[in-house]
Amino acid sequence: MKKILLAAMAILAFLPARAGKVVTDSIRSKVLGADVTFNIYLPDGYGESPRHYPVIYLLHGLTDTYTAWVERGNMQTVVDELIASGEIKPVVIVMPNAGGPDPHTIWNGYFNMPGWNYEDFFFTELIPGVEGKYGCGGRKGQRAVMGLSMGGGGSTVYCQRHPDMFSSCYAMSAWLDNQDEIGSETKDKLYYVCKAVRDHSALDFLDNADEATLEKLRTVAWFLDCGDDDYLLHLSYAFHIKMRQAGVHSELRVRNGVHNWEYWHLGLRLSLPFASRNFD
Amino acid sequence: MKKILLAAMAILAFLPARAGKVVTDSIRSKVLGADVTFNIYLPDGYGESPRHYPVIYLLHGLTDTYTAWVERGNMQTVVDELIASGEIKPVVIVMPNAGGPDPHTIWNGYFNMPGWNYEDFFFTELIPGVEGKYGCGGRKGQRAVMGLSMGGGGSTVYCQRHPDMFSSCYAMSAWLDNQDEIGSETKDKLYYVCKAVRDHSALDFLDNADEATLEKLRTVAWFLDCGDDDYLLHLSYAFHIKMRQAGVHSELRVRNGVHNWEYWHLGLRLSLPFASRNFD
Amino acid sequence: MKKILLAAMAILAFLPARAGKVVTDSIRSKVLGADVTFNIYLPDGYGESPRHYPVIYLLHGLTDTYTAWVERGNMQTVVDELIASGEIKPVVIVMPNAGGPDPHTIWNGYFNMPGWNYEDFFFTELIPGVEGKYGCGGRKGQRAVMGLSMGGGGSTVYCQRHPDMFSSCYAMSAWLDNQDEIGSETKDKLYYVCKAVRDHSALDFLDNADEATLEKLRTVAWFLDCGDDDYLLHLSYAFHIKMRQAGVHSELRVRNGVHNWEYWHLGLRLSLPFASRNFD
Amino acid sequence: MKKILLAAMAILAFLPARAGKVVTDSIRSKVLGADVTFNIYLPDGYGESPRHYPVIYLLHGLTDTYTAWVERGNMQTVVDELIASGEIKPVVIVMPNAGGPDPHTIWNGYFNMPGWNYEDFFFTELIPGVEGKYGCGGRKGQRAVMGLSMGGGGSTVYCQRHPDMFSSCYAMSAWLDNQDEIGSETKDKLYYVCKAVRDHSALDFLDNADEATLEKLRTVAWFLDCGDDDYLLHLSYAFHIKMRQAGVHSELRVRNGVHNWEYWHLGLRLSLPFASRNFD
Repeated sequence: MKKILLAAMAILAFLPARAGKVVTDSIRSKVLGADVTFNIYLPDGYGESPRHYPVIYLLHGLTDTYTAWVERGNMQTVVDELIASGEIKPVVIVMPNAGGPDPHTIWNGYFNMPGWNYEDFFFTELIPGVEGKYGCGGRKGQRAVMGLSMGGGGSTVYCQRHPDMFSSCYAMSAWLDNQDEIGSETKDKLYYVCKAVRDHSALDFLDNADEATLEKLRTVAWFLDCGDDDYLLHLSYAFHIKMRQAGVHSELRVRNGVHNWEYWHLGLRLSLPFASRNFD
Repeated sequence: MKKILLAAMAILAFLPARAGKVVTDSIRSKVLGADVTFNIYLPDGYGESPRHYPVIYLLHGLTDTYTAWVERGNMQTVVDELIASGEIKPVVIVMPNAGGPDPHTIWNGYFNMPGWNYEDFFFTELIPGVEGKYGCGGRKGQRAVMGLSMGGGGSTVYCQRHPDMFSSCYAMSAWLDNQDEIGSETKDKLYYVCKAVRDHSALDFLDNADEATLEKLRTVAWFLDCGDDDYLLHLSYAFHIKMRQAGVHSELRVRNGVHNWEYWHLGLRLSLPFASRNFD
Repeated sequence: MKKILLAAMAILAFLPARAGKVVTDSIRSKVLGADVTFNIYLPDGYGESPRHYPVIYLLHGLTDTYTAWVERGNMQTVVDELIASGEIKPVVIVMPNAGGPDPHTIWNGYFNMPGWNYEDFFFTELIPGVEGKYGCGGRKGQRAVMGLSMGGGGSTVYCQRHPDMFSSCYAMSAWLDNQDEIGSETKDKLYYVCKAVRDHSALDFLDNADEATLEKLRTVAWFLDCGDDDYLLHLSYAFHIKMRQAGVHSELRVRNGVHNWEYWHLGLRLSLPFASRNFD
Repeated sequence: MKKILLAAMAILAFLPARAGKVVTDSIRSKVLGADVTFNIYLPDGYGESPRHYPVIYLLHGLTDTYTAWVERGNMQTVVDELIASGEIKPVVIVMPNAGGPDPHTIWNGYFNMPGWNYEDFFFTELIPGVEGKYGCGGRKGQRAVMGLSMGGGGSTVYCQRHPDMFSSCYAMSAWLDNQDEIGSETKDKLYYVCKAVRDHSALDFLDNADEATLEKLRTVAWFLDCGDDDYLLHLSYAFHIKMRQAGVHSELRVRNGVHNWEYWHLGLRLSLPFASRNFD
């Protein structure tokens, strides 16, 4: 009977031996006047010996929260597998909250908005706080940012405005600009995030960049990834072409798909190795 | 404000236009003396006009149930996408229950066992019942079977014993034989499924097959798919080599991975087109 | 010693058992007043028994000839492998000459030009001549067209102007329009092919198409495939977006690469299955 | 007319801007008493500034020569593309001669044979000579080895016997053992290479390895890659399983294919990133 139990246990032993773990933590933000929750992936072996890890900031989209990449994107399985096979280096991955299900009443977005200066929080509180506590990142060559939709736009604009902070940027299905008319009767939270995306247009940024700015952009590795049936495809394409015209190299992939989690889940197999090989 | 709402709705409109649906249904089995629940995927447009669809039986593994491929394998998103891009034909997919979380006390398995003749149920009740009710399948050229682990073994052995019933077989991480010692003190349900897998060894079947049998096997398209770190890899490999030696063509892929849902989820992108192109 | 020789022979036996063959043939064209050479791929088993095959027209680019897909694209190995693994149906592939190394002095192009009515030749002589002689194609559902650069443009425009003739169109790195100024001092052969590409702009065609025309385009399966660093990427992208706006479904892939044979060689692994699954 | 010429030039400008070059060179070997020719890939920018590069030794198969990877494997295009997209670091790649078309009369092989001590040449003359002259490699963390068939076996055994010399080993379709009977009437050069492969069996090496040896093997990153219809598949599989049993991690991929250049050409897209990410 022992053999049967062993066999059953073997069959149930689905997890790879070297699994990392996801921890939910939070940070007190003076800038926002609130606690901000984040999920953080810690690779297998983390904490067992003093070791410094590179860090990836993995950003969610509008109406989602810090749990999205874990629960809907199944990021943990992919990261474990890529580390186990050596396709990426062991890495810490931070997934901070920047939204919630009702964008009219809950703040969504990565930029500064009246009363919700998230970008200030991100650079003055989140990055130093998390990297200090968890022993990761610490400099451009050990730090990357990536995200989907609103988080793809956030990643891109963060790297445009802070090119000294990230070695690479991977933007999936990115919301890089907002050209829709924005009503003004009810200036609720959705109004402000839509306006912030327009005001921080990644396309306008390129149009207005001088050569010194472009030279800084060339120190970041850029990657755009968007589905052929995604309604935001025009933004990734336009950004890629403007970058080419500006002499800043970017990668572009258009894979089969729409604006959904299947696309982003598969995207991790491209984005994580890209970030990993661009660490110093 | 209307524009804002439209923008938000657009951003939330993640689902492809042509999404199928998954329906939970059940069938009364006289053979088993029980109702058997199944999930069935119906493609977009199903039921709108009289049309006959091919059918795929998609089998789960030990300790799982009819919900596994939907809830853990996210099969619906993948199938929708493959149909939308034309990579597979619109198809009905049947996911019958053949197990449960505690294999000691709940029947698991696709073969006949004392008091649980699942194979009889499958061929005399499930296939005619479902295909009649849902207007699909009906013959070998319009029917395929695939599955993972215990379901990969079930798929393979079903095609060995009923080669006139399926056009193709795709076995993921398949449990094709059981060479562990089976204790006999407590002949519980796990004992019987382990014994049934040994008694229905797909490897032994090939060792014992005469030329007339092999000729029938050549009418089925075979595919083995198993992770390089899967503890069952030896079974898929041994089966592939025995098939080659017997002059029956089979495909084999060893991708990166272990015995887990990430592997099987990705496997759908190979298995479904394989089944689709082998329909007549 | 016999064993050694057997071992050496085994090691040298690199070719798959079921290899097709490429035959060079030519057809007399009254339209062009010339013999037109073509390479034709015939799958393994061709001619052994009466059997009808689907046909693919595989078109080369500017300055290349009928030998390009065989010699530079290594098409034969890929086709053999895809047939052997069942990824495509056995198929006849026709690679007609439509160019030569010096475009100033040798006619290049798939359209009618003054004194070189290639499109007329293609539809009134090549298709009936080859399909009659080789027992393939014969109707839309058994015929596909694909090509690279100038041949990608030719494929696309052929399907726009003759949607009743092809079940699918796969355009790689396609030259779909010519917006460069065309000089007129020396109206040599390069002048005329550049002018013909402008006059047959696939983009203008969509801008000018009425609903009845669009409805016909919807009977063809369309696929655009272009490298992210290809200087013609804007054309494939613009075509895809115009198709989407017109309500005609097309697939788009942007893979890593430039305007070269590595891209097109890999493209065969996408284009051939696409054509195959769109045969009736 | 200028515009036309520009257009034509653009169309002809197929090469990526940052192309490396392949140089043919040779080294005088005292060990072999002969000049040994090699091709060497030098990345774009090589020689323009003092810079140290990692090095990959890329080994050909039986009956082939130092030209095989360039002429039949089209390695240059793939390497250029992978460097341009950042998938691999700029690297020097050495392809030394170790064979010729008639294995009966021309020495083939990577091991020491009576009168042809190639392994001695490789480690005492080729490595120091090439790395000194070209400013590359120099230590384990900056050196990798890979190859196909006989060269896959050579790579593997070199890493078994010299684990302090290579950071990674990628073996394609590898000839890892020779279990055929070897005749002895005519002890020609083919006899000796077959005997050397048997005497240097990578499988036997694992069977006989003590724990200290295994611990050294764990400092190398191992990858096996072999087609599902390759007649040598049993060797790659057996090696992978023996490695697993010995507690030495190795990757295994079985892709679709046979023992041919299509398989190896595609293999470069896996093998080169693998080597690159295992450099220190």
